[in-house]
Amino acid sequence: LALRDDGPIEPDPDLDALLAANRRFYDAFEQRDLDAMSSAWEHSDRVACTHPGWRVLRGWGAVSGSWFAIFTGPAQLQVILTDVRGEVAGDVAWVTCDENLIGNDMTGTVSALNLFVRANGDWRLVAHHASPVSG
Amino acid sequence: LALRDDGPIEPDPDLDALLAANRRFYDAFEQRDLDAMSSAWEHSDRVACTHPGWRVLRGWGAVSGSWFAIFTGPAQLQVILTDVRGEVAGDVAWVTCDENLIGNDMTGTVSALNLFVRANGDWRLVAHHASPVSG
Repeated sequence: LALRDDGPIEPDPDLDALLAANRRFYDAFEQRDLDAMSSAWEHSDRVACTHPGWRVLRGWGAVSGSWFAIFTGPAQLQVILTDVRGEVAGDVAWVTCDENLIGNDMTGTVSALNLFVRANGDWRLVAHHASPVSG
Repeated sequence: LALRDDGPIEPDPDLDALLAANRRFYDAFEQRDLDAMSSAWEHSDRVACTHPGWRVLRGWGAVSGSWFAIFTGPAQLQVILTDVRGEVAGDVAWVTCDENLIGNDMTGTVSALNLFVRANGDWRLVAHHASPVSG
């Protein structure tokens, strides 16, 4: 059991499952895997996604279409996550993290807020908002 | 009672209260009112805020400090909200909207995702992520 100044760190299976779901989302992105991306999201009207520099897209149809467009585009990116933090509030949870994107033509850091809802024990994305960090 | 194709629109006090809380956040921003901004947020370690182009700030200390810096800076902005949509999931809720910012030196549109948690009947912000819309 690791120790911190404020006492032992308790295992937190809810948080572990949340961070695993967040990681699966980025694995799907990195691998340009539409099936895995589809599994990462809730399929509903209430989902929302803001890609860097984009307007918000709402509903699974529009969101999945954007991933299809991105995955069939030229940019192939590796994603190194840093500064990841998750918060669980019942069956809703959110993750903030930095996406460090490394590609042939570009590198850059994107700040992300990912919102998840738990259904049948699985955390699914209901909102993703990502924006470039300047400077 | 208004009618839509899918039937009458039911009054939704939860959603109304959520959108009112979202509006109070933007009123505080427009009026550069730190007390009102403080009331709009949960005061906790788990709050997170990403201003356009910034890295994420975490914890009420860092978040409130950023509002203080913004409010004492030169930019005075009017905010016209468009394309506002709220979703309530128990005691957690989120709003997506466009912030149309109008100032002396700049105008622009920012896409925002605002996450709220309800405590004692009040919706308080726990996360705000805003990013410029290009083009």
